[in-house]
Amino acid sequence: MGEFDLIAKYFSRSSAREDVLLDVGDDAAVVHVPPDKRLVAAVDTIVEGVHFLPGAAAADVGYRALAVNLSDMAAMGAMPAWMTLSLSLPRADEAWLAGFATGLYDLADKYAVALVGGDTVRGPLAVTVQILGLVEADGWLTRSHAQIGDTVFVSGLPGEAAGGLAVLQQSLPQSADAQRLIQRFLRPEPRVALGRALRMLANATIDVSDGVISDLQHICEQSDCGAHIDMEVFPVSSALRACFDASKCEQMALNGGDDYELVFTVPPERLLAVEAAIAGGVRCTPIGRIVAGNGVQCFRGGQRLALAPRGYDHFS
Amino acid sequence: MGEFDLIAKYFSRSSAREDVLLDVGDDAAVVHVPPDKRLVAAVDTIVEGVHFLPGAAAADVGYRALAVNLSDMAAMGAMPAWMTLSLSLPRADEAWLAGFATGLYDLADKYAVALVGGDTVRGPLAVTVQILGLVEADGWLTRSHAQIGDTVFVSGLPGEAAGGLAVLQQSLPQSADAQRLIQRFLRPEPRVALGRALRMLANATIDVSDGVISDLQHICEQSDCGAHIDMEVFPVSSALRACFDASKCEQMALNGGDDYELVFTVPPERLLAVEAAIAGGVRCTPIGRIVAGNGVQCFRGGQRLALAPRGYDHFS
Repeated sequence: MGEFDLIAKYFSRSSAREDVLLDVGDDAAVVHVPPDKRLVAAVDTIVEGVHFLPGAAAADVGYRALAVNLSDMAAMGAMPAWMTLSLSLPRADEAWLAGFATGLYDLADKYAVALVGGDTVRGPLAVTVQILGLVEADGWLTRSHAQIGDTVFVSGLPGEAAGGLAVLQQSLPQSADAQRLIQRFLRPEPRVALGRALRMLANATIDVSDGVISDLQHICEQSDCGAHIDMEVFPVSSALRACFDASKCEQMALNGGDDYELVFTVPPERLLAVEAAIAGGVRCTPIGRIVAGNGVQCFRGGQRLALAPRGYDHFS
Repeated sequence: MGEFDLIAKYFSRSSAREDVLLDVGDDAAVVHVPPDKRLVAAVDTIVEGVHFLPGAAAADVGYRALAVNLSDMAAMGAMPAWMTLSLSLPRADEAWLAGFATGLYDLADKYAVALVGGDTVRGPLAVTVQILGLVEADGWLTRSHAQIGDTVFVSGLPGEAAGGLAVLQQSLPQSADAQRLIQRFLRPEPRVALGRALRMLANATIDVSDGVISDLQHICEQSDCGAHIDMEVFPVSSALRACFDASKCEQMALNGGDDYELVFTVPPERLLAVEAAIAGGVRCTPIGRIVAGNGVQCFRGGQRLALAPRGYDHFS
């Protein structure tokens, strides 16, 4: 089965979205952006052995390729709408493609995202998704508007994904807690609804792909400020505690990547509004505050901790 | 120098486009699509050793990564506007990145395309560009509306790029003709202006990435028709003739990839309008016509030629 047949078989499903004017299968797709919306665009590539384990289930790879991009939409307060897909495959393996398509479309359908274009090339296993979303013209979330005095929040329980990866890599016993961590690593839930709720309320937002400290550091750099984290209120997952010692748990919570939670900052006058807006959704925990200066510092009982190492850098 | 620093150094140039509302450097970019335009999206990946020669000059790789995507915009009759870039690099080689950025930005500036987002990962050398363009709401070009009786045109001199690749691969003497072919391979000119001129005039359009016959075949399949090509009028480059024998020239002209010319079909009643619209631009040659049936057949002096092999398939 040749390249064109493969693409036709697995990735030519017609879109249910009425704003797709010309679907996958031509030189390009044509879509309609409503006049009252702005277009939001991001791209993320995942590579075997770097962003997912060698031999990972194809459905999990398909899920992840889209999930990491939906997480970028969440961090902007945008609604995901369309995507293009570039697949680099070592060979045309139909079983793999079928699994990949299942994982990708399951998540795409959940968020009503239409696949409108793609390319398939021979090469090492890697997947690039470009996500296109829509956001209201009156504002979107950025990394660059944190203000001194803002409260810093994190959603969910960061570190669980890193714990799941460690369980898989070290072949640790697969208790119910360990299973939860693995699931959080393999199937991170993009916080799209939370991002939508935070629009016009949070001063700065970022998604946690490299670790809470590392990603909060980006907010600090781009907002020209610093941040203090209070370790006594920082949430640490009970599943993580059940599998790893306290020191390892803390390190994973602060520096573990792949959680795709949101870190966001809220000014005092909007704390109540945020609380109301996010009620009923994923739990969000205040973990510190934005301060003058630069860099992220962690404190416990008033004592400053040695700064943890920065997040994952593909080239370091 | 780490990943973030590299990206910041070479790919964070601010855009000159006023419709870029949030530039590269956040979780996503935000751009404005005018209400009277529709958004056109495509993606193309180029891989070392598949789409460009191992050890190719970095500037040529940067140029090609964008050119192949601009060619998709040309085939839609769209104006390119923004792009995202995903770079897979075996190592953080600053000299290579500097050269790549030069080739990419030279072409981007020529077409006023803004780089609004990107990702950099460690892996074998591969470049994915997602191009976003704009087209008028009243219509765009597709592959699927060729009609029986249409005249089939091709722009430029297809086969020159394949000739240039052969010169490089076989280390043939680098005469002035050979140099011209190499240049056509390394620096294909996307036919954006031609595509714009053909909008509302051509019935079907495709860009020639895999070869004239192979790409015309896509028009036939998607328009439910066949095509006859008249080899006596098919243009064959004199530079190509100077470097290769007649049989090889014909094969390259029909099946050579990488030219990024346009193949388009025009109904009889719009032939004069097309002639006027494309005057002064790249030369376009009528090479045949759309017929009932399916498939592409080539004729010389009324004799049907044995069907040439299909275009390049990465997985065949």
